[in-house]
Amino acid sequence: MSEENIVYIGNKPVMNYVLAVVTQMNGGVSEVILKARGRAISRAVDVAEIVRNRFITDATVTNIDISTEEIMSNEGSSTNVSAIEISLAKE
Amino acid sequence: MSEENIVYIGNKPVMNYVLAVVTQMNGGVSEVILKARGRAISRAVDVAEIVRNRFITDATVTNIDISTEEIMSNEGSSTNVSAIEISLAKE
Repeated sequence: MSEENIVYIGNKPVMNYVLAVVTQMNGGVSEVILKARGRAISRAVDVAEIVRNRFITDATVTNIDISTEEIMSNEGSSTNVSAIEISLAKE
Repeated sequence: MSEENIVYIGNKPVMNYVLAVVTQMNGGVSEVILKARGRAISRAVDVAEIVRNRFITDATVTNIDISTEEIMSNEGSSTNVSAIEISLAKE
């Protein structure tokens, strides 16, 4: 658990993010945190599930946090958006 | 924690599910589990966040689990879909 890296999940295809996580873990990073907001939240869950079921079977989900973030628009108004953080760690 | 109830999150507006959770909790249910699959996962996170931030401020997220479920189509083929379970409890 000495190193950790963050992968931000956006609107690209799921496998792009899976590859990013797998590359980091195979490069020696022991913990990767997936962060996503809004509609990308379901994609973050897909990434975590695909990584641990298909690629790195000794990886486990060690923690999941949900929260609300406030986004300021250019006009100065604000909107709330949900966010998720999924921690994946390799033993 | 004696009673618990499950709310399945689908494609209806978020506030429908928020109302369902708030109604159960105000009716004496101490723990509600939100379940969602696929794209509805982000909506489940929205529901949990809105309930605890705006309606029942003493409710906390006690557990979050993610998993993969296999869906059989009518033609007999199967697809994997991610799923989430969020436990909300009132103290």
